Amino acid sequence: MNPTIGVFDSGFGGLTVLRALMERLPGAQYAFIGDTARLPYGSKSRRTIARYAAQSARFLVEEQNADFLVIACNTASALALDAIQEAVSQPVLGVIEPGAEAAHAASRTGDVLVIATDATVHSHAYAAACSAKGLRAMEKACPLLVPLVEEGWTGHPVTAEVIRIYLDELKTEAARQGMRPDTLVLGCTHYPLLRPLIEAAVPAGMNVIDSAEAAAEAAMRQFGRQLAAAPLESGSDSSSRPGSGPVVRCFATDSVEKFERLGSRFLGRPVGAVELVDLGG
Amino acid sequence: MNPTIGVFDSGFGGLTVLRALMERLPGAQYAFIGDTARLPYGSKSRRTIARYAAQSARFLVEEQNADFLVIACNTASALALDAIQEAVSQPVLGVIEPGAEAAHAASRTGDVLVIATDATVHSHAYAAACSAKGLRAMEKACPLLVPLVEEGWTGHPVTAEVIRIYLDELKTEAARQGMRPDTLVLGCTHYPLLRPLIEAAVPAGMNVIDSAEAAAEAAMRQFGRQLAAAPLESGSDSSSRPGSGPVVRCFATDSVEKFERLGSRFLGRPVGAVELVDLGG
Repeated sequence: MNPTIGVFDSGFGGLTVLRALMERLPGAQYAFIGDTARLPYGSKSRRTIARYAAQSARFLVEEQNADFLVIACNTASALALDAIQEAVSQPVLGVIEPGAEAAHAASRTGDVLVIATDATVHSHAYAAACSAKGLRAMEKACPLLVPLVEEGWTGHPVTAEVIRIYLDELKTEAARQGMRPDTLVLGCTHYPLLRPLIEAAVPAGMNVIDSAEAAAEAAMRQFGRQLAAAPLESGSDSSSRPGSGPVVRCFATDSVEKFERLGSRFLGRPVGAVELVDLGG
Repeated sequence: MNPTIGVFDSGFGGLTVLRALMERLPGAQYAFIGDTARLPYGSKSRRTIARYAAQSARFLVEEQNADFLVIACNTASALALDAIQEAVSQPVLGVIEPGAEAAHAASRTGDVLVIATDATVHSHAYAAACSAKGLRAMEKACPLLVPLVEEGWTGHPVTAEVIRIYLDELKTEAARQGMRPDTLVLGCTHYPLLRPLIEAAVPAGMNVIDSAEAAAEAAMRQFGRQLAAAPLESGSDSSSRPGSGPVVRCFATDSVEKFERLGSRFLGRPVGAVELVDLGG
């Protein structure tokens, strides 16, 4: 039996994390839950987010037999990692710490910019994680970017303009405080879909860190040993499911149709049949 | 004891309806609940919205002694009016029917445009309500407008451009189907804050119908008789609370701070202390 990695998000943005995990750990099985009935978490309080996230974590462990959990949601990682770790006994990995670690590895000046949702920014989780590594971080909430991605305007001139406005405000404030930022962290799992527009908007030479990729790298380091013991670890024994890649089951608390329709943009392949689950909210 | 009008929304957009009600029925007491822990309803399924809305309706009736309910949320009116009417025995008024009625009164050509959230549009509740009055309606989802209002960009060039794009697409599609629309219904309680930009974007002479105003007019007609029996019906006996206006209690299921901060934009005056309530979601 291959290990099962349980992946949790408030919606389907976390499918960018699942995609990065599947590329690196094709021998694992995956169970993904999007708490779509209660999204977005980005505008909710810590108490509410912690309650919701713990319910999803227990579902992945108790009903899907997950051996590890990846919290593929910056807001839940920022506000509810402790609550999730208390709710289950399995190892739990968030996206904040890997994002800060990747920023630390990339930055020469030690000054880092972070863009994320309202709730992630107000938690200052990135600033704290960066500070623990000796980095200075300036965070900015960009609440229009998720709706623009979900509207499908990932290459639209309006989106480019919104990104320009947000990044200009952020750079101006950083300069005002004497920072010389050389690294930008995409602190929301929707933002990888905007990466081309974001890279076009940042100054030449600035590192752009994708927290989804960073989390998948960290998962590979953290869970790699257990997965190495599994027969499909290399992904080479896919002959039993030719062309199908890793086994993935997707669950949502609402809007299965929307999940199926939009999810493939984030996963980079069809998400297949999404199963509706009631967490009792 | 003055009658109490219970007003329900998924967030605080419905405060535009409360504002319109207070102007017309200053003698009533008001209890407003925003189900902010679970907003936005616009992207959720009928089943989920009905369950959430019925909980809020029962709260207003059972705990706030509401004599009438106004569903100040287009999405809940479109998808859950039946469920709410089943959940309580008090009269319930939504915003869809009054919006369609006002469009009927305004339109000469009989062709009407409606802009709203995804869920309201997919319900085709406006098209059905308009059709019942002999109007042809073309609906369009404008999912970026609520986030733009909540970002505070109510007069921003980006918002003007987004409105122009949405309305151009809508007018083009209407023309393609041989329609000659002369009336635009704002089918979301956030949109009144964009009225200046919307009026600048529509052709000269097009009627713009605000569903918040239309709902308040309908409430005055429907509840006016009961309110006429109340001592403060005219609002002239406000001397006991000089300058305070009608008595209003506001409740939210989350983010009391955000509600207090943003709510005044919608209500047009400070919302005062917002009380946190747990509906068990």
